[in-house]
Amino acid sequence: MSALYRWPDYDAVELHRARSARVQAFMREQELDALLLVGPDHIRYATDFRAHLTNESEWFAALVTRDGEAEIFLPYIDETIVDPYPELPWVRAVHAVASWSAATANPATWIAAVARAARSLGSRLRLGIDSVDQGLLSGLQRELDLTPVPVGTGLHRLRREKHPTEVLLLDAVSRVNAGAMEAALGAARVGGTDHEVLAAAMAYQQAAGVEFVTHSVCNLRNGTGDWFAGGRRFAEGDPFFFDIGCYGPGGYASDAGRTGFVGEPAPEHLAAYEHLQTAYRIAQDLAVPGAKASSLLAACNEYLESHGLGRTPYAIGHGVGLRICELPTLFSPGLMDEDVTLVEGEVIALEPETTVVVDGRATVFKIEDDFVVEAHGLRRLTEIPGPEEFVGA
Amino acid sequence: MSALYRWPDYDAVELHRARSARVQAFMREQELDALLLVGPDHIRYATDFRAHLTNESEWFAALVTRDGEAEIFLPYIDETIVDPYPELPWVRAVHAVASWSAATANPATWIAAVARAARSLGSRLRLGIDSVDQGLLSGLQRELDLTPVPVGTGLHRLRREKHPTEVLLLDAVSRVNAGAMEAALGAARVGGTDHEVLAAAMAYQQAAGVEFVTHSVCNLRNGTGDWFAGGRRFAEGDPFFFDIGCYGPGGYASDAGRTGFVGEPAPEHLAAYEHLQTAYRIAQDLAVPGAKASSLLAACNEYLESHGLGRTPYAIGHGVGLRICELPTLFSPGLMDEDVTLVEGEVIALEPETTVVVDGRATVFKIEDDFVVEAHGLRRLTEIPGPEEFVGA
Repeated sequence: MSALYRWPDYDAVELHRARSARVQAFMREQELDALLLVGPDHIRYATDFRAHLTNESEWFAALVTRDGEAEIFLPYIDETIVDPYPELPWVRAVHAVASWSAATANPATWIAAVARAARSLGSRLRLGIDSVDQGLLSGLQRELDLTPVPVGTGLHRLRREKHPTEVLLLDAVSRVNAGAMEAALGAARVGGTDHEVLAAAMAYQQAAGVEFVTHSVCNLRNGTGDWFAGGRRFAEGDPFFFDIGCYGPGGYASDAGRTGFVGEPAPEHLAAYEHLQTAYRIAQDLAVPGAKASSLLAACNEYLESHGLGRTPYAIGHGVGLRICELPTLFSPGLMDEDVTLVEGEVIALEPETTVVVDGRATVFKIEDDFVVEAHGLRRLTEIPGPEEFVGA
Repeated sequence: MSALYRWPDYDAVELHRARSARVQAFMREQELDALLLVGPDHIRYATDFRAHLTNESEWFAALVTRDGEAEIFLPYIDETIVDPYPELPWVRAVHAVASWSAATANPATWIAAVARAARSLGSRLRLGIDSVDQGLLSGLQRELDLTPVPVGTGLHRLRREKHPTEVLLLDAVSRVNAGAMEAALGAARVGGTDHEVLAAAMAYQQAAGVEFVTHSVCNLRNGTGDWFAGGRRFAEGDPFFFDIGCYGPGGYASDAGRTGFVGEPAPEHLAAYEHLQTAYRIAQDLAVPGAKASSLLAACNEYLESHGLGRTPYAIGHGVGLRICELPTLFSPGLMDEDVTLVEGEVIALEPETTVVVDGRATVFKIEDDFVVEAHGLRRLTEIPGPEEFVGA
């Protein structure tokens, strides 16, 4: 199946209002007059504007008022346009900055445009900022009397709780990503390349109508080295894994991965993969509301190490939303800021890996799925869609 | 042709040394003790480390000394590893930060890790920074006596001049991207979708062995609205354009686009497209070393407007390198910081567009190619590769 997915209908205005209300409450709590955002995900959360045209994400900025109104700085216009988007009436204007360049490549142009718009918001602004470059910020401070307040962490924390429409959209894109993984597994063949496997996944994702492919990596015979496809060719019995992701409509993400085998695997490889699946099951079973973030990786690694297998050397999971990876971080104490407890309704990815050494050669196995945390445990979102879920079927 | 491209052999160590020497000279000029970089492109330029696993680019950081040695902070390890990469001996260590999260999602963890490593570089550091979040920076300043010096703009300017190996790599990836455009044009069919066109391009890019797809947009019957594919289906005579990009080996980019027609175009559409090609030719002919950046767009738009067509409403071009869009910006005075003159050996993309209104309906046409600026003018890099350029051919 490689066709356009029937993406769910949803009320984008209601979703925007729900997210904007949270942002506005946060601004009141922090006594902020406005936000100046440059992160495409934060901009989208606060304004519903799709500030992501490429993976170069320093092209856009948004000024957001305490009423949730916004002015946006765009890299593809040459004049200010008032009330530009009938479907986003809260966006009052869009302004030109230097096209096709990081804000820091043309800082004076950026500072002039942003200062001009910010000046109308009042004087002595308390301005919440995400990762605005220090050089840009200093320039703004020469133009305006403003107190910058870093809010990136606060916004990330705010975004953990998911609205039901967010879960609906995360569900849909996870299904498409699961279909893409199936296509990728089916594309692995003796003599074919790791790139071909990823090409099959991408073609599936893009034909289904995703907004953006976020990543696409495949480890074939690269041991504990990096995960990048390297033009390697599959041989009989080869294990491999890949990790792929995309944003669907609304900008909601799926991040997932699979281990595959070409032909008949070695018994030691199959055994290690089966142990990984058991460790994965253990972690999933622990993931109920109230579970400590650190408990999942600890249990997974205890099982793997007790079977002589390599541990997962990174966070076993993370939240998924308008970024492929967001809070909560499911790692170990000391390697995350807070050992939070899981919350009903949030969406997470789990991604255990293990390493087995056979005849002196290390092989890494990895699985990743997306889940929503429900009252009694996880519901998996990365389920392969049926043919009836596609347009024209 | 959809197969693995024969990427050129090149001396990665020599390229690293050449780039690192430029960075070190810049640090001496700026009297910097070290750099703290978070931009994947700046990290790669200074260290050759591929800090780009997904489009979420706030996962990595690098501390770079005046000798060009580096310590890197990774989102997928749980302990420090000394001398981790035999092929990058200048990377002295890699350190763990919170996995799979923006640095600002787990700021305390990030600050502790970076401060620990930075402390060994000495006290009273003058530290060059790119877009390090203000909250992270304040945290570091509580731990260390450091003076942050914004260097993002300086690094972007430094990177305009291209080493011959950079041109070699930009040439190769541009050829692959040109092949992908040809595949995309061939995939447009009556009844098919805009997403299918992009899927064909992506599958081609990925099968050829690109490192990363940067963007993939297609405007089919969306007028002057956004460029995102929307599940629209082609009808006889439809014009459309797409804009696609990717990073090839070494992380060098191509950014390009084409206008296409399904079946027989309306005469007014064809005429507008031919005028766009003439305007494009005019801009290309002007692009010789010493030409003013602003002159290209001005001439292009003068031609288009004199023929009653819509102007290109953004920069007509930009540099291409370790980012798909970098300096120089080829826009208008006031919409870029410097009206520079073109330099022999630099690589640029040119991307004029025009709009024509037929029967009250606006249609946008766009073309984009990558070029190297040579002594007597432009040499186009986005040339369709021959079958002999692929492995197995």
